[in-house]
Amino acid sequence: MPRSQVIIGRKNVMRYVTACITLFNRGEKEIVLRARGRNIDNCIKTIMLLRSGFYSNLRIKEINLSSDELRRDDGRVIYVGVLEAVISL
Amino acid sequence: MPRSQVIIGRKNVMRYVTACITLFNRGEKEIVLRARGRNIDNCIKTIMLLRSGFYSNLRIKEINLSSDELRRDDGRVIYVGVLEAVISL
Repeated sequence: MPRSQVIIGRKNVMRYVTACITLFNRGEKEIVLRARGRNIDNCIKTIMLLRSGFYSNLRIKEINLSSDELRRDDGRVIYVGVLEAVISL
Repeated sequence: MPRSQVIIGRKNVMRYVTACITLFNRGEKEIVLRARGRNIDNCIKTIMLLRSGFYSNLRIKEINLSSDELRRDDGRVIYVGVLEAVISL
């Protein structure tokens, strides 16, 4: 079964919290959160807020760190860090 | 035995890579890397660079996510995400 994924961007953290709640309410048991670069902070905040405000039994099942190559318009290649966290109820 | 800690800030990633190499050369088997907010990206880049450039057998032994409260000068409290990674040879 493919797991639902939520890509964490730069929007307000509550958006991502709501997205996760919606998925859990639909019956998902596990959600993959993925964030890059400075959005990783937002990803961690989302998890902390889900746990403190909604699901006190939320588990972080798995965390993967990696990096992505991005090719800029001017041809330069930059690297950004990637965090992928699997959360489950 | 207390483990060595490297706090990852906003300096060039190579600074933190060098700090870790120095510690490993001194005989440390494990290093704790800690970063907050948008510096977390730097922390992940440090680990990826250590692995790709210096220690192909580097293991990420443990990752902890949490959050910190910061009180700003104007009295507002903001939250930042915290990542702590234990790396070992």
